[in-house]
Amino acid sequence: MIDHSAFGVDPWCLYEQHLDLSLMPHSESLFALSNGHVGWRGNLDEGEPHGLPGTYLNGVYEVRPLPYAEAAYGLPESGQSVINVTNGKLMRLLVEDEPFDVRYGKLHKHERCLDMRDGVLRRAVEWESPAGRRVKVRSTRMVSLTQRAIAAVLYEVEAVGEAARVVVQSELVANEELPAASDDPRAAGVLAEPLVGVSHGQMGSRVGLVHTVRKSGLRVAAVADHIVEGPENLLTQTESREDLGRFTAAVLLQPGEVLRVVKFVAYGWSAERSLPALRAQVEAALAAALQTSWEGLLADQRSCLDDYWSHADVEIDGDPDIQQAVRFGLFHIHQASARGEQRSIPAKGLTGNGYDGHAFWDTETFVLQVLTYTAPAAAADALRWRQRTLPLARDRAKQLRLQGAAFPWRTIAGEECSGYWPAGTAAFHINADIADAVIRYYLATGDHAFDREAGLELLVETARLWCSLGHFDGAGRFRIEGVTGPDEYSAIADNNVYTNLMAQRNLAAAADVAARHPELAAGLGVDPGETDHWRAAAKGMYIPYDEAIGVHPQADDFTKHAVWDFEATSADEYPLLLNFPYFDLYRKQVIKQADLVLALHLRGDAFDEEEKARNFSYYERLTVRDSSLSACSQSVMAAELGHLQLAYDYLGEAALMDLENLEHNTADGLHLASLAGSWIALVAGFGGMRHHDDRGVSFAPRLPPGWKRLAFRILVRGAVVRVETDPESAHYTLESGEDLEIRHYGTAITLSAGQTVSREIPEPPERPTPIQPRGRAPQPRGVHAMRDHTVHSAS
Amino acid sequence: MIDHSAFGVDPWCLYEQHLDLSLMPHSESLFALSNGHVGWRGNLDEGEPHGLPGTYLNGVYEVRPLPYAEAAYGLPESGQSVINVTNGKLMRLLVEDEPFDVRYGKLHKHERCLDMRDGVLRRAVEWESPAGRRVKVRSTRMVSLTQRAIAAVLYEVEAVGEAARVVVQSELVANEELPAASDDPRAAGVLAEPLVGVSHGQMGSRVGLVHTVRKSGLRVAAVADHIVEGPENLLTQTESREDLGRFTAAVLLQPGEVLRVVKFVAYGWSAERSLPALRAQVEAALAAALQTSWEGLLADQRSCLDDYWSHADVEIDGDPDIQQAVRFGLFHIHQASARGEQRSIPAKGLTGNGYDGHAFWDTETFVLQVLTYTAPAAAADALRWRQRTLPLARDRAKQLRLQGAAFPWRTIAGEECSGYWPAGTAAFHINADIADAVIRYYLATGDHAFDREAGLELLVETARLWCSLGHFDGAGRFRIEGVTGPDEYSAIADNNVYTNLMAQRNLAAAADVAARHPELAAGLGVDPGETDHWRAAAKGMYIPYDEAIGVHPQADDFTKHAVWDFEATSADEYPLLLNFPYFDLYRKQVIKQADLVLALHLRGDAFDEEEKARNFSYYERLTVRDSSLSACSQSVMAAELGHLQLAYDYLGEAALMDLENLEHNTADGLHLASLAGSWIALVAGFGGMRHHDDRGVSFAPRLPPGWKRLAFRILVRGAVVRVETDPESAHYTLESGEDLEIRHYGTAITLSAGQTVSREIPEPPERPTPIQPRGRAPQPRGVHAMRDHTVHSAS
Repeated sequence: MIDHSAFGVDPWCLYEQHLDLSLMPHSESLFALSNGHVGWRGNLDEGEPHGLPGTYLNGVYEVRPLPYAEAAYGLPESGQSVINVTNGKLMRLLVEDEPFDVRYGKLHKHERCLDMRDGVLRRAVEWESPAGRRVKVRSTRMVSLTQRAIAAVLYEVEAVGEAARVVVQSELVANEELPAASDDPRAAGVLAEPLVGVSHGQMGSRVGLVHTVRKSGLRVAAVADHIVEGPENLLTQTESREDLGRFTAAVLLQPGEVLRVVKFVAYGWSAERSLPALRAQVEAALAAALQTSWEGLLADQRSCLDDYWSHADVEIDGDPDIQQAVRFGLFHIHQASARGEQRSIPAKGLTGNGYDGHAFWDTETFVLQVLTYTAPAAAADALRWRQRTLPLARDRAKQLRLQGAAFPWRTIAGEECSGYWPAGTAAFHINADIADAVIRYYLATGDHAFDREAGLELLVETARLWCSLGHFDGAGRFRIEGVTGPDEYSAIADNNVYTNLMAQRNLAAAADVAARHPELAAGLGVDPGETDHWRAAAKGMYIPYDEAIGVHPQADDFTKHAVWDFEATSADEYPLLLNFPYFDLYRKQVIKQADLVLALHLRGDAFDEEEKARNFSYYERLTVRDSSLSACSQSVMAAELGHLQLAYDYLGEAALMDLENLEHNTADGLHLASLAGSWIALVAGFGGMRHHDDRGVSFAPRLPPGWKRLAFRILVRGAVVRVETDPESAHYTLESGEDLEIRHYGTAITLSAGQTVSREIPEPPERPTPIQPRGRAPQPRGVHAMRDHTVHSAS
Repeated sequence: MIDHSAFGVDPWCLYEQHLDLSLMPHSESLFALSNGHVGWRGNLDEGEPHGLPGTYLNGVYEVRPLPYAEAAYGLPESGQSVINVTNGKLMRLLVEDEPFDVRYGKLHKHERCLDMRDGVLRRAVEWESPAGRRVKVRSTRMVSLTQRAIAAVLYEVEAVGEAARVVVQSELVANEELPAASDDPRAAGVLAEPLVGVSHGQMGSRVGLVHTVRKSGLRVAAVADHIVEGPENLLTQTESREDLGRFTAAVLLQPGEVLRVVKFVAYGWSAERSLPALRAQVEAALAAALQTSWEGLLADQRSCLDDYWSHADVEIDGDPDIQQAVRFGLFHIHQASARGEQRSIPAKGLTGNGYDGHAFWDTETFVLQVLTYTAPAAAADALRWRQRTLPLARDRAKQLRLQGAAFPWRTIAGEECSGYWPAGTAAFHINADIADAVIRYYLATGDHAFDREAGLELLVETARLWCSLGHFDGAGRFRIEGVTGPDEYSAIADNNVYTNLMAQRNLAAAADVAARHPELAAGLGVDPGETDHWRAAAKGMYIPYDEAIGVHPQADDFTKHAVWDFEATSADEYPLLLNFPYFDLYRKQVIKQADLVLALHLRGDAFDEEEKARNFSYYERLTVRDSSLSACSQSVMAAELGHLQLAYDYLGEAALMDLENLEHNTADGLHLASLAGSWIALVAGFGGMRHHDDRGVSFAPRLPPGWKRLAFRILVRGAVVRVETDPESAHYTLESGEDLEIRHYGTAITLSAGQTVSREIPEPPERPTPIQPRGRAPQPRGVHAMRDHTVHSAS
């Protein structure tokens, strides 16, 4: 765990006030910039020292074989790994004859700030070389949210005290040396030298490199241009080689004089376009950026973020850490999704190579919850990516001898890349999760075009999958057997309640969407017999229930299994998956991450309140949270059931997952789902927001101890609803849009534009606080957990 | 499937009357010779053409990494693969200037005969070279059953019609080129050039090679000596290189003259002994063989086999194919086990590199059933091998966070080599299978020394495993969850009936043996508390039962699963594992091999007759027999339940598995368990032999339609019991030993030495014949299936 105080607490910025080399791998992820198309890790301008150099293009990957000790039918033979593409952020500095390297000389000042309103990473350094020459270095880095191919750096060097000969080398570097891969299965396979040079060149202040990725054959282009200002003695030159493009500016700076270099970098890639076409594309992007200018890009960036924050922001009075953390999360979610444009949103965005750069259900189940209500166009975009991969998902279903579409458990381009089928292919719930995101999106937006063009096909093909996966038993119950639910400490179980409930919704929604668009549905081969079958399967869906203890087993027989011996498990044996074999985890009652509890949230309409309370209490005793995909769901259900302190503690864990490196792997990239989880815990948890059906959005707000206020907005069917909660009452404002019916603790309220309706908040029910496994209770939050809130600023 | 008529039907020989190159990979396995220490595949003397050259030493393997697409705790990192060691059977022949190769010139005659009483492979060839020179070649090959390090060849060449200059090259060749490995996961990983030369030399007519195995570091020595007879113009020479030792005999033969070469080969290997010690060992073995002489070795071989057949033989009047097949099976079982001497008996013996040369439960559950009652010393030997590997099994249990010993699912030297844990490590029944073999051995022999020295420790450590694998539920039932039973089309299930019943016997027997040897048990840390726990677990063992349909589910909930769509499965989709993903097989009612039906046999004491009948009928509908480990168990239960024709059909499948290549992989080596299965189907099936407890052996004989007689002997507690059955009655003779109580259809009979007791056989019960999945009924046997029984002889 990182002491969060290494990073200053400010409502809109993430500050680093001094450089701690041991935190560098971690801060590189926190300070990553991205627009969903290009991703730059927060590496130092000069490249070294580094934890993991990282420049990513969404969709650019290398193919690697997936080996098996024992082969079997249907195992994917090759995987996809995100690769570190051409590094365009490098700005090397030579002061007299000393390269600027924070490990040498004296660092008088080193501050960094991720500005979440300006959308830039700022750095301010004052450095004294080993020979005693002193310079100030200021840089501002951005990955443009408005021009998706563009990233840019403003790099300024000032001589301090005495004159200094200064050389800045602005580089494009391909095939950077990467640190060796770790043994942790969660870390990525690192691929050495994946890029093969195709062409390189320079012209004026411009340099460019084109490569192909060795095995996947994707073609990647990067070009950089520069605008330099400085004293008249300035000399510039450019050069290029296969893996290097370099622009050099050399100058003698008098004390107080500044060398100012603006670097514009344009990226492009394609699997199909010709070399001239790809080169023209990046040159055009660069021209547009130069035409916009650095200042123009900055202004556009701010304006884009202002627009985002105007409806996505969440305000908290009472916990500055969480205030900062939720904005940090929303900022990174925006970065990951803003310009994905029908590419995936990987589990770690474009902030690191963890999980090989794969997208999982994290996107649909967690990230899209946030985007659907704050940036619906980005949610639609992500779902249209899934639709684009339907042909692959249909092929996979065929290979698995199933109907419809079987979406991959993990992938970059749509092919199944999971090399361990019990926790990959068997996790068929990914298909219901995608369907759920489609249903949620349509419910929230009423976007008929999407419904027709994408929703229908996605729901139909996933419903078909469930029909071939499940079967009716003699008693007319529809059973889905031998699948793996969200909890990865269980596998290949029968009638996982989460899966069955999500499949039930999937099947019913497919019948509904087919009824809305009968002709289009017929074009997909849907006939009334098929939709009847979907409705019958949904209606007959078997949901196991353990009468003896009044609890829903996570899957058939789960509650009959031995309970994990938590008393005998020491703190350093977590995460359990690194210390116990799967077979032992699978056969016992021990839960890695919310599974049934996630069903209590997402299918809350399928349980009554007492069932929820009993289930939540039962599963709290078993859940160890060895996954980042758990705390937020536990927070939501704790809040619903009135365990407000517990909900608060889980919120803290979800929100600070990356800021405090709670899973020790933030260095590989941020956990986007957990970042989304802080919004979910706030809005669905303390805001009590649910949206199960077309009866409208409902709220049941209730603040955690010590908070004075929580406010957020959601976008629903074109309307902007603002919800503000204080300890006594909730205030609902329709900021724009047509009259809208919402519910407050079950009571309908009709909102009209500009009007605020306030309602009292009922007392929470009294229930015994649930107990967690020994040592696995979340860190308590509250007044005693507060820290210094001084705001620092980077110069 | 191979048309068995390619091989002549003879009660004591397996004949091949002409050479069919397409059958060569298959016949190499059938004609393999072995003594359990050295194995020579039935390759042609001249080495080529071949299917798979094969020379094996029991325990000599190479280490290879086991790769995983996704790593996890506790997965074995390296495996062991049997390797093709120095080939000592090569006898190359040059006639004038043409190498003898059956693919060229004209083959006037080519006959081979595996003589199961003499224990040799004979070959008689008459060949005309492309240049028109004619020779007769006769060879006799043996792997000595009496001198374990020794194999030998008699090779004779005779000129026919006109004089011929003949050269015989007798070779030792290391690192032979092997055919490329296939994609079939059941085939072995082929390892290229595993041997590294250490030393080589020649002296007189003797050549020798010593190698180490590249990664495992085992040291292997082979030395050959020769005795030559021929006309006076004979010239001989020897030479050696790193991978070649060669003895050459060149001679001009007049028509009718014969060149006769006897080659003695001695093998040795060690992980520990020094190079001089190993060399001395093989030289000594060679000296002993030379002293014995070829004729002496032949006589010893015959005498050893006469002794074996005197109590192991099974006689059948009514089906010459089965008569031959059961002897073929018994011969190969004897070959695989005769001189194993505390090494494993691999699933394919030393007849091929299939399954990487690993030993599985096949040995204890199938092969040792036969050996225990026909060659008990060999059974004890195999179990002492397991005991020798106990330290590794204890380490594995620790790694898996379990108590006691966890024996490997597949191994050569004792380390777990399974690379797919759901069908490897999770198949914990291997431990109960080993225990069952221990219990059976003690029951059959009363061998107190073994009980003290090996049985106790094996039973105690396996009982400890079950205690840590299972748990008592609230109702006091002992449950064993998340394990895989024998059926490999199911995995990771709860309370597999077979596993639980076998564990129950294991636990009870451990308590019993500890009570027999309290002091020794105390030395293993056993106290009364522990044995009480074992008895309680055995007593409380949970055996699931589906009341609704009156059937035992193979494991919890099995009978609730969807039944496989057999109607939609075409013949070419079998074996299913090559055409369907595991997840689909696992979640449906489809059975690869007898699992519950095997429990009906081995734990027949745990079911009443009507339960057996209902269960058998139920599981017959689901069992596809994609494994060679199924037909014999189905035969046994069909016979017990009175389905005599069905039992007969299954017997045919078990007995002809290799002779007719029913699984299409006999080329990789014989299926020892299925070979054992023909004895099991005859003795336990049609003989109705059971031996569940110390109330003695029971019989319930009943012949299949058309048979006139079945006779076999078993060894029980030092006594030899002969059982002879005709259609009306059974005749029990105690050929030697003290008075013995047996049972005939439940009625006790006391036998005295030399006395024969005859009893009538009751009519079989009338039950509807069980039905198999579409297309999966066994091939019908009976009068119409009979073939030409002419006996041919190799000259």
